[in-house]
Amino acid sequence: MIIVMETNASAEAIDRVSREIEKMGSQPHLSRGKFRTVIGAVGEEGAVDQAHLASLDGVEKVVPIMKPYKLASREFHEDDSVIEVGGGSVPKVKVGGPHAACIAGPCAVENLKMLRTIARHVRDGGATILRGGIYKPRTSPYSFQGLGLEALKWMRDTGDELGMPICVEVMDTRQVESMEPLVDCFQIGARNMQNFDLLREVGKTRKAVLLKRGLAATVKDWLLSAEYVLSQGNRSVILCERGIKTFEDSIRYTLDITSIPVTKQWTHLPVIVDPSHAAGKRDYVPSIAMAGMAAGAHGIIVEVHYCPSEAQCDGPQALLPETFKELMGQLRAIAAVTKKEFAEAGELVSA
Amino acid sequence: MIIVMETNASAEAIDRVSREIEKMGSQPHLSRGKFRTVIGAVGEEGAVDQAHLASLDGVEKVVPIMKPYKLASREFHEDDSVIEVGGGSVPKVKVGGPHAACIAGPCAVENLKMLRTIARHVRDGGATILRGGIYKPRTSPYSFQGLGLEALKWMRDTGDELGMPICVEVMDTRQVESMEPLVDCFQIGARNMQNFDLLREVGKTRKAVLLKRGLAATVKDWLLSAEYVLSQGNRSVILCERGIKTFEDSIRYTLDITSIPVTKQWTHLPVIVDPSHAAGKRDYVPSIAMAGMAAGAHGIIVEVHYCPSEAQCDGPQALLPETFKELMGQLRAIAAVTKKEFAEAGELVSA
Amino acid sequence: MIIVMETNASAEAIDRVSREIEKMGSQPHLSRGKFRTVIGAVGEEGAVDQAHLASLDGVEKVVPIMKPYKLASREFHEDDSVIEVGGGSVPKVKVGGPHAACIAGPCAVENLKMLRTIARHVRDGGATILRGGIYKPRTSPYSFQGLGLEALKWMRDTGDELGMPICVEVMDTRQVESMEPLVDCFQIGARNMQNFDLLREVGKTRKAVLLKRGLAATVKDWLLSAEYVLSQGNRSVILCERGIKTFEDSIRYTLDITSIPVTKQWTHLPVIVDPSHAAGKRDYVPSIAMAGMAAGAHGIIVEVHYCPSEAQCDGPQALLPETFKELMGQLRAIAAVTKKEFAEAGELVSA
Amino acid sequence: MIIVMETNASAEAIDRVSREIEKMGSQPHLSRGKFRTVIGAVGEEGAVDQAHLASLDGVEKVVPIMKPYKLASREFHEDDSVIEVGGGSVPKVKVGGPHAACIAGPCAVENLKMLRTIARHVRDGGATILRGGIYKPRTSPYSFQGLGLEALKWMRDTGDELGMPICVEVMDTRQVESMEPLVDCFQIGARNMQNFDLLREVGKTRKAVLLKRGLAATVKDWLLSAEYVLSQGNRSVILCERGIKTFEDSIRYTLDITSIPVTKQWTHLPVIVDPSHAAGKRDYVPSIAMAGMAAGAHGIIVEVHYCPSEAQCDGPQALLPETFKELMGQLRAIAAVTKKEFAEAGELVSA
Repeated sequence: MIIVMETNASAEAIDRVSREIEKMGSQPHLSRGKFRTVIGAVGEEGAVDQAHLASLDGVEKVVPIMKPYKLASREFHEDDSVIEVGGGSVPKVKVGGPHAACIAGPCAVENLKMLRTIARHVRDGGATILRGGIYKPRTSPYSFQGLGLEALKWMRDTGDELGMPICVEVMDTRQVESMEPLVDCFQIGARNMQNFDLLREVGKTRKAVLLKRGLAATVKDWLLSAEYVLSQGNRSVILCERGIKTFEDSIRYTLDITSIPVTKQWTHLPVIVDPSHAAGKRDYVPSIAMAGMAAGAHGIIVEVHYCPSEAQCDGPQALLPETFKELMGQLRAIAAVTKKEFAEAGELVSA
Repeated sequence: MIIVMETNASAEAIDRVSREIEKMGSQPHLSRGKFRTVIGAVGEEGAVDQAHLASLDGVEKVVPIMKPYKLASREFHEDDSVIEVGGGSVPKVKVGGPHAACIAGPCAVENLKMLRTIARHVRDGGATILRGGIYKPRTSPYSFQGLGLEALKWMRDTGDELGMPICVEVMDTRQVESMEPLVDCFQIGARNMQNFDLLREVGKTRKAVLLKRGLAATVKDWLLSAEYVLSQGNRSVILCERGIKTFEDSIRYTLDITSIPVTKQWTHLPVIVDPSHAAGKRDYVPSIAMAGMAAGAHGIIVEVHYCPSEAQCDGPQALLPETFKELMGQLRAIAAVTKKEFAEAGELVSA
Repeated sequence: MIIVMETNASAEAIDRVSREIEKMGSQPHLSRGKFRTVIGAVGEEGAVDQAHLASLDGVEKVVPIMKPYKLASREFHEDDSVIEVGGGSVPKVKVGGPHAACIAGPCAVENLKMLRTIARHVRDGGATILRGGIYKPRTSPYSFQGLGLEALKWMRDTGDELGMPICVEVMDTRQVESMEPLVDCFQIGARNMQNFDLLREVGKTRKAVLLKRGLAATVKDWLLSAEYVLSQGNRSVILCERGIKTFEDSIRYTLDITSIPVTKQWTHLPVIVDPSHAAGKRDYVPSIAMAGMAAGAHGIIVEVHYCPSEAQCDGPQALLPETFKELMGQLRAIAAVTKKEFAEAGELVSA
Repeated sequence: MIIVMETNASAEAIDRVSREIEKMGSQPHLSRGKFRTVIGAVGEEGAVDQAHLASLDGVEKVVPIMKPYKLASREFHEDDSVIEVGGGSVPKVKVGGPHAACIAGPCAVENLKMLRTIARHVRDGGATILRGGIYKPRTSPYSFQGLGLEALKWMRDTGDELGMPICVEVMDTRQVESMEPLVDCFQIGARNMQNFDLLREVGKTRKAVLLKRGLAATVKDWLLSAEYVLSQGNRSVILCERGIKTFEDSIRYTLDITSIPVTKQWTHLPVIVDPSHAAGKRDYVPSIAMAGMAAGAHGIIVEVHYCPSEAQCDGPQALLPETFKELMGQLRAIAAVTKKEFAEAGELVSA
């Protein structure tokens, strides 16, 4: 950690900072420049309290050198983590390292029939994990809010029938207990990325966690949220980039493709992209999905509906089954360039 | 609602959209331009499903004309709402219309002694509501997370002793029940602005709700979150602007002062500003607080600490008691220009 | 154009707006809703003055339906434009439609020897157009500002020698005249995207124009800037996405990959990506370049240096020649998926 | 400057960095932590080439400690600069330190009569400098582009008649020479903030320069642009905050009020705000202007029109003369709180 002193910081202030660094168990290294003094705190950075140092007299700013997360860092775990989703009644699907996965399904589960139809379509198209919302985070209290646990049972049955693990969003700490026995992967939505109690709660479960990036979260914030889950003992975290808010208004969100290589350099956790929510419009989904894979993502999560105009939620962004199938072909070709491979849906049935 | 058709939309597609609008109980009005057809849906906009229309063939985009919130809108309630915080063991403090309020206290409650000391300082300086965190939303799982319910009891006792209603952040739906009897105002933090279950839960209580704006929320999103609370029957919502994320890196957040006049035009709810979290650094707090009041805010929420270098949380942004007192004098002068008045702390004791 | 009247707009105000629309040669269509009246202006949208209507009493907002640019729009020119760069002393290189191009070279031309060395490297690697800066837009007045016209002559000679058209940034209207005879393609930098006089000036030349997107420009702003060039008679505009400013601080700029499918839907002009300036760091360049091609771009512009630590400008982001060559192989594979093809450098020599 | 080495940087790489720092005339100070080595470069920071160090092997990042601008910094000039605008045929108006100024007038000069009418209105209302555009930077090539030099003569005559210095935007390096004898203050628009040739050109003149902040420029970028002007010998630079681009779409731009206290801490140059361009709508202008003054600005620049619906440019944001006059009363009251004073227009005539 580097402590930059103000131009006119007194010798006393510099001494105080040095002593505080020593109290924290690190060694202060002073560099006295023409205009200002800079103090390096050398040792275990985790032990140094940045906020405390920043609040001392004469300190202009504190520049951390090490990353504030540990379990999520490449330093802690050098190789790519490979997360397994599923097991038990459904095959395990690997995500991470050379393994790319496609998670697909409807935005919201509306009834059993539509769910089964879409699930078959996405499985035929190449998806290996089934998604479907039962609680929907809607910006308006007057929008459709999801069907709850009954819909989760339909998801479980459909997943079991087709040999697909299921990925379902959880929104409230009180839902975790009842959902845990039924899901293979909890999804944490972008708006809950910093719902720290919820992160802790899923961190105590034994199921995989798909952690979407917040709409205004930096990569560092995102990995700190992953750290919340990891620190509770759950090491099966999959990151998901789904677009950030910028001034651009031609599209719903700006998928931050540049975050993919950064994330892969900073963490061992797999990272996938969600082209549907960024695009908001199905025409743009394939290009964005391909860009994500080309940037090095470990897969995609995408919404598919056979009749988008009847969908109760986010119809305009749902891919038609035939477009989805075609897209999967393109994604396989691109994955080959970045040395990744999508599992074949076919393998799963016999697993 | 305006439905803009694609340049080459078929007559059939235009008919379909018109029929769907009729089904929703509105009348379609067609305007055929040289290049494209535009359809106006006239009637109760709430009844028209924007997403459904957007997902129909041939539709380029749907432009809503009316605001998506109701109870929060000026159309619903023309005059400024005046929210009362407190009552019972403490006096009621008014916020809204001509009434400005100052909410002040430590970032986090660390022990009873520091709380009482700071509470006296802020009351002497002119604050009429006491703030203090007992659960802290921290980006890192390794940071101090607050002392919980014991600290809340200290807050209650201190508030009662000084005649100050208390405002305390709630982070998890499971905390609402135990906190409700003790607080006068629930604070919803920026990171929970779209934690919809939490919004619903505080909406069922009878206590005021201070709703901070999310770091990347538009004013519209913010008012929709207020609508979640209002729609549960709780009409005592105070909005709080606390800075948004932008590319600017010289300061922690950009306090969006332009949102103040916009918010006041769109809603009847009071809006205050939080200069501490935007600034991140005490030097900048007074200027930002003054700017907020000059823009028309109904008050401020500000962090104060007599010894910031010992604070366990956000010390660098806490004002010293004497600076706080001086600032309150400046804020009173500015409030007079925008025809608002801060209640005197003195009045409260005798209330 | 849609004019949304205020809730309480008077009949007189509505009449005035209607009359003004008629004066502009369009027909007003009124839709009277329960809360407000909306007026559609049907006719040639270009003829309707949005700002004038917005300034009338009782008008809440004006929503344009058509795009504000013409020559740049898909409506004006349905098929992809294919721009030719070069001709005369060097072969013509096609950009647009199925033709992808790689523009590569040093950030700044430092001396003839380094230029020739790098030019050979990039040509061997697969680039078909040579880039190199002679005037450098530097945020600091104390940074290296480029060598000017002498360096341009070296660029011309090197391009001629290797059969590569040259692309060189112009910064000032006064430079256009002297540069025109020597360049094949003018580059307009991001910071000059709205230097309207410069846009007009290059619009009067007969050379191609590579127009970088401004750091905070929307796609609409960008196409309006292209329209400035096109409206002067120069139809050879190539768009270049190079990253936008967002709150994310882990990388220099956020390459807005979502702008690629949007741009391709709205305009016939080719669009390429610049991964070097977005990344700021060579490690991230290949992933970003591949993402751009996968999203459907018509090529890339990239910085290459054989000894980045000696570069006078932007060394950290320059690719090494061998990395560049490897990247080109990957880009060819990805281009095949999106049905585009990079010309072989070899073809050019014999052209 | 702090050089952070990669976790696995070799001893050789560390040596190389140290030697390069010495070559630049500074001393390297090594701090070897458990995970990585950090090297401080102590000495004249200006002499150290950040980009060069960043491009060396094994370097993760370079963190500058000192500000990259000199003449603009508080370190260079500790007291507030007071800039004088005018002189000769009109009185000098002071801006900076305790002196606040109001610059007002029409967006664009349309004809002599309207100019004189508006000029009298703003002078009566309390403005002491007259603004008016003769070249208009318009995003669309089809919008009104200004009347050029003839309009400048009207500005000069009107300013002389009323005793008001004039402030006029310059857009192109080729306009500087002809404008210099006629203007008192050159305005550089937001879109030209990084038109470095234009900055240099006005830096060679003897007239004041009003430098608007770019729509996505950080405070640091802005001060570096000021440095371009200052470094040519012109020390009369007034900064102007006019709103930045963010995701918020309820208002045209977000006036970055937090930049005011930051700017005042970092530089001695005066800073004013432009509420008109941020608001885009006259209703919001007064609140934003007041917020700017309360934050500590040295004045405002505002657009006024007696008949906004006839304005050829930006009519919706122009204040009516009576609103302007009322606003000036409020601004005087707020300025008193921040210890600033607007000169009375009346004083000027006799000057």
